[in-house]
Amino acid sequence: MEDFHVGQKFATGSVTVTEEAIIAFARQYDPQDFHTDPVKAKESVFGGLVASGWHTVCVGHNKMVKALFAEEDRQRSLGREPGVSGPSPGVNALEFKVPVRPGDTATFELVITDKRPSNSIPGWGLLFTRLSAVNQHGELVYRADNVGFSKLRDYRMPIGLRLLLVMSKLPFIGKRLKRDT
Amino acid sequence: MEDFHVGQKFATGSVTVTEEAIIAFARQYDPQDFHTDPVKAKESVFGGLVASGWHTVCVGHNKMVKALFAEEDRQRSLGREPGVSGPSPGVNALEFKVPVRPGDTATFELVITDKRPSNSIPGWGLLFTRLSAVNQHGELVYRADNVGFSKLRDYRMPIGLRLLLVMSKLPFIGKRLKRDT
Repeated sequence: MEDFHVGQKFATGSVTVTEEAIIAFARQYDPQDFHTDPVKAKESVFGGLVASGWHTVCVGHNKMVKALFAEEDRQRSLGREPGVSGPSPGVNALEFKVPVRPGDTATFELVITDKRPSNSIPGWGLLFTRLSAVNQHGELVYRADNVGFSKLRDYRMPIGLRLLLVMSKLPFIGKRLKRDT
Repeated sequence: MEDFHVGQKFATGSVTVTEEAIIAFARQYDPQDFHTDPVKAKESVFGGLVASGWHTVCVGHNKMVKALFAEEDRQRSLGREPGVSGPSPGVNALEFKVPVRPGDTATFELVITDKRPSNSIPGWGLLFTRLSAVNQHGELVYRADNVGFSKLRDYRMPIGLRLLLVMSKLPFIGKRLKRDT
């Protein structure tokens, strides 16, 4: 978390989405005609096949994860130990703006929009990011305001919490703790 | 849109998520160790392999789409023509609450939370839904507040818009209209 600053941008690369990929994803996760059937899609409100919004989200997430891995490698190459990223508590808003059609190229960008220590998990911070994509015409395809936990590097855990952590490693107590929290 | 009422619930079924499915999804869309590598995942903050949040979202979306198809079939069986659903402008909030681990069963439920005519697209309404999942322990896994366009059945399009629509079918003008709006 300490390695990022608000306003920092990461170019996360482009993906050209094929008709085959659109149909394969949609058959598994979003089997609506306008995502799976090029013929029926012509009669739909979209006038042709379009990618499921979740397909774009997943492709973009993959690009984001890889961009953050590359940033970790860069930190290591500078002799620094990169931060540890954790779970995501969710997404604050996700907007689908322009459909992605077969052959469209989506270019993704990640911006760090905010960061702060977590109020609920000691030793962790929250990183707020905006991931967006534009197509080959420069039109905004989608944007998502994501939240992710990121470990605080210089955090020293209070003694009570450390004791709880040790106890949680004991099989029986650990199970109970996990279930109760 | 006329077929749904606020507060209406749809049981959308259960999915048991296997380790193989977790790894296969994550390799494609979320290649972080705690989603792809059962051994390294043990050392992670999760203490073991967990599904990508997007995996749960996609599996849940598939269940939701199929539940709405079943509802359309039910409408047809009653002699009614089901409504037409359109694009989704996005998701208002998405929260990941408890991780999904190999062998966990997620049970999804869809609730209609609100509906209203669209302010931006004549003839269409907006349907607000909450999709959530609980695991086999009854713990909330995730919930998402989705928005979707749904065609208004009894809408009569104003003459100016009808003219625009006819013009948009002419190849050259249609292309320009699509690009400009």
